[in-house]
Amino acid sequence: MAVGLHDLPTLHPVTGVRLGTAAAGIRKKDRRDLVVIECAAGTRTAATFTKNRFCAAPVTVAREHLAQTAPRALLINTGFANAGTGTPGLQDARTCCAALARQIGCADSEVLPFSTGVIGERLPVDRIVAGLPACLAHLGEGRWEEAAHGLMTTDTLPKGSSRQVRIGAHTVTVTGIAKGAGMIRPDMATMLAFVATDAAISQKALQACIAEAVAKSFNRITVDGDTSTNDACVLLATGMAGNTIIDAPQGDAYTVLAAAVTDVFTELAQAIVRDAEGATKFITVEVRGGESESDCLDVAYTIAHSPLVKTAFFASDPNWGRILAAIGRAPVASLDVNAVSVYLNEVRVVHNGALATDYTEAKGLAVMRLPEIVIGVDLGAGSSSARIWTSDLSHDYVRINAEYRS
Amino acid sequence: MAVGLHDLPTLHPVTGVRLGTAAAGIRKKDRRDLVVIECAAGTRTAATFTKNRFCAAPVTVAREHLAQTAPRALLINTGFANAGTGTPGLQDARTCCAALARQIGCADSEVLPFSTGVIGERLPVDRIVAGLPACLAHLGEGRWEEAAHGLMTTDTLPKGSSRQVRIGAHTVTVTGIAKGAGMIRPDMATMLAFVATDAAISQKALQACIAEAVAKSFNRITVDGDTSTNDACVLLATGMAGNTIIDAPQGDAYTVLAAAVTDVFTELAQAIVRDAEGATKFITVEVRGGESESDCLDVAYTIAHSPLVKTAFFASDPNWGRILAAIGRAPVASLDVNAVSVYLNEVRVVHNGALATDYTEAKGLAVMRLPEIVIGVDLGAGSSSARIWTSDLSHDYVRINAEYRS
Repeated sequence: MAVGLHDLPTLHPVTGVRLGTAAAGIRKKDRRDLVVIECAAGTRTAATFTKNRFCAAPVTVAREHLAQTAPRALLINTGFANAGTGTPGLQDARTCCAALARQIGCADSEVLPFSTGVIGERLPVDRIVAGLPACLAHLGEGRWEEAAHGLMTTDTLPKGSSRQVRIGAHTVTVTGIAKGAGMIRPDMATMLAFVATDAAISQKALQACIAEAVAKSFNRITVDGDTSTNDACVLLATGMAGNTIIDAPQGDAYTVLAAAVTDVFTELAQAIVRDAEGATKFITVEVRGGESESDCLDVAYTIAHSPLVKTAFFASDPNWGRILAAIGRAPVASLDVNAVSVYLNEVRVVHNGALATDYTEAKGLAVMRLPEIVIGVDLGAGSSSARIWTSDLSHDYVRINAEYRS
Repeated sequence: MAVGLHDLPTLHPVTGVRLGTAAAGIRKKDRRDLVVIECAAGTRTAATFTKNRFCAAPVTVAREHLAQTAPRALLINTGFANAGTGTPGLQDARTCCAALARQIGCADSEVLPFSTGVIGERLPVDRIVAGLPACLAHLGEGRWEEAAHGLMTTDTLPKGSSRQVRIGAHTVTVTGIAKGAGMIRPDMATMLAFVATDAAISQKALQACIAEAVAKSFNRITVDGDTSTNDACVLLATGMAGNTIIDAPQGDAYTVLAAAVTDVFTELAQAIVRDAEGATKFITVEVRGGESESDCLDVAYTIAHSPLVKTAFFASDPNWGRILAAIGRAPVASLDVNAVSVYLNEVRVVHNGALATDYTEAKGLAVMRLPEIVIGVDLGAGSSSARIWTSDLSHDYVRINAEYRS
C-alpha cells in the first residue's frame, strides 16, 4: 500500500537519452527486470554511490569506469544485487558491461552497471546478456515509464518525476526514475535513481547540482535505517536543449536548473518512502530550534528509526511519550528537555518538555488517523533546522522481509 | 513466546530484605502491580539509572533521595511510567514516597520510587497509596517470586535469578528480579532490576560491583534500540551474611561476590531478551578481532538493531547478506571488508569478505531453525571483542506495540 502515490506523472523525454526494457527472466519469469539507458555522445554524468563499505560489485565497477571516461550507457538489472560476491562478482559485472558495449559499439568502460535484489548470490550473467537484444530493439526516448517499471522489486508502484523549466529562450527538461523499497537509509545516494536533463552544463556545475539535490532529497529519507550495499544515483546531462552552457554552480540558469533537479530528486525520494515496504503512513519529521543542522538530523533520525514510534504510527496511536523517549536518547550532548516542544501537524502536544495544557487525546487521534503526518520538534536551543521523511512499521514490513527470499 | 525461559528458579531469601506485592488496580484490574522492597537498617545501596535525557519523574526523585541518605524501601508500580509528566509528575512520585515512609516509619528520602508503563500520563496516586497496606501486610523474606510477578507488564514470564557462594566460612546469597520487555536498549541501566545480597561490603566496593556487573549484562542487551525513560537497576547489600566486610573492589572475596552478582545480572538481562516482545529467537552477537571494544560494540549493535537482520532471523532465513550490509554501515572508520568473517554458530558463512567456499544454504538453514543462535563476526583487525544479546523482529512485536495502549 503506497501512501499518496498514484499513477506515474507525465515523464517528458530528454533529448539524447534513450531507454529500453526487457523481461529477461533474471530471478522471476515474465517480469521486466533489465533496463538499458543509452545517452548521446557528449553527455556529462555525475553520480553518487553508497557509503556502505560492503558495497556491491557493480558500485565498484561503476566508480572505476566513471573515473576513466564519460559513460554512453547504464545497464541495470533487478533480482540480484551482486553484493558480497567477491572477485567473481566483479568479473560478472565486467562481463555484462562488455556484452552491452559490444552491441552498442562503445568501450567497456563507457558502460556503468547497476544491480538490485538479493545480496550474496552470483549474477546470472547468461540471462542478462541474452536479454540485451530485447532491450536494444526497443530503445526510445519515450520509454521512461517502461524503464520505471523495469526497476521495480518490492516496490508496489513505479516511481518517476519530470519537470520542464525555461533557461533563457530554451525549454530544459529534467526527468528521472527510481526504485525503493526497503534497506533504505541512503548515505550520499539512494537505492537506484536515474535522472537525465538535456541542459548544457559543465561537469563541475553538474557535480555541484547532484550534490546539492541529493543532500536535500535522497539523503533525507529512511525506511528502516539499513543503508543498502547498492545505492546509486546518476544524473545525466546531454547538453541538447540549446541553452548557453551553465559553466559554474551559480547564476540564474544554474539556480533554475538546480531547483528543477532538486524537485525531481525530492519527488522520487518521497515516492520511495510513500511506497516503503509495508508503509501505511508518510511521515515528515521536522526538527527546528537546534544548535546545528547535525543536531536536528540526529534527533530526526532517532525518531524516524525508533521501532516504537513507527509501530505507534502504524496503530494511529498518539503515543507521544515514545517520541519524547526517542528525542531523549538522541546523541545531542546539549539537549535541554525542558525546552523541547513536539507537534503532530498543527497540534502542539508537548510544550517545554511536558504535556501541553491545551492538548487532548482527541486532537492527537484526529491527526494520527491521517495518512500523511508531520512530527514537528522544536529543540528550543538555536536556529538550525532539518527535515526528513520516513514511514511506519507495520505487519506487512515484517511479512515482506521475512518472506523476501522465499 | 519466550525463548528458552521457563519457570522461575529457586529464589533464595536475602536476610534483611522483605518484599510485599499487591494488586492495586493501577491500570488493569486483578493484576499484581505494586511492589514494596524493604531493607534492614544499615543496608548499602548502589544504583544505576537511564541516560535518556527525558528521564521519568521517579528516576529524578530516586537520584535525589539516593544522594541524601541510604534507602530503607523501594516502591515500584507498573501501569504508568510517570515520564513526560513535568512538575506534577515529580510531586506524584514524592507523594507516593511520603505515604510509604509514613507507614513504615522512615524519612521520605529513605524511599526510592520506580515506575514502568505508559509514558505521559499522570500516576494514579490515590490507588497506589491505597494499595500500600496490602503490600505491607504480606511483607516477607520469602516473597521474591510474588514480587517478580508484580513487576511484569508485557513480560510473558516473571524473571528472577539467585546464586549462593561461600565467602570465608559464610554463605552469601545474591538474589534479583527484573522486568522487560520492550523499549530495551539499556544505557547504564535496564528497565527495572532489583538485586539484593546479604554480603557485608563497603559502599565503594558495592558501587564498583554494580558498575562491573551492569557493564557485562544489562548494558549488553537490546531488543529494539529504544532506551527507556525509566531504566533503573538497584543492588542492595544488607551486610547480614556474617562475612568480614569487603572493603575494596579487589581481593578474593570481592571477586567471588562480583562474579555471583554478574551471574545474576546476566541471567536477568538474558531473561529480558528471551522474553522480548514477540521474540522467537535468542540471538548472541559476538564480535572479535576489533581494534577496540568500542568498535566491536558498534558492529554488534548495528547488526542487532537492523530490522532486516531481525526479520530474516524471524523467518529462519540465512540471509547473511543483510548481516554484511549491517557490518558495512557500522560506524567503524577503519573497517576492512576484505578481512571480515561471519559465522552462524559453528558454520562459517563469510570468509575474508566473501562467501566461504565450504558454505551451503543447507548448513545455514540448519542453524537458523534453532531457537538460540550465535552470530559470530571476526573483523580481522585486532584483538578486542564484545558480546551482546538480542531478539528477532516478528509479527507479534508489531502487534504488541501497535496495541500497547488499547
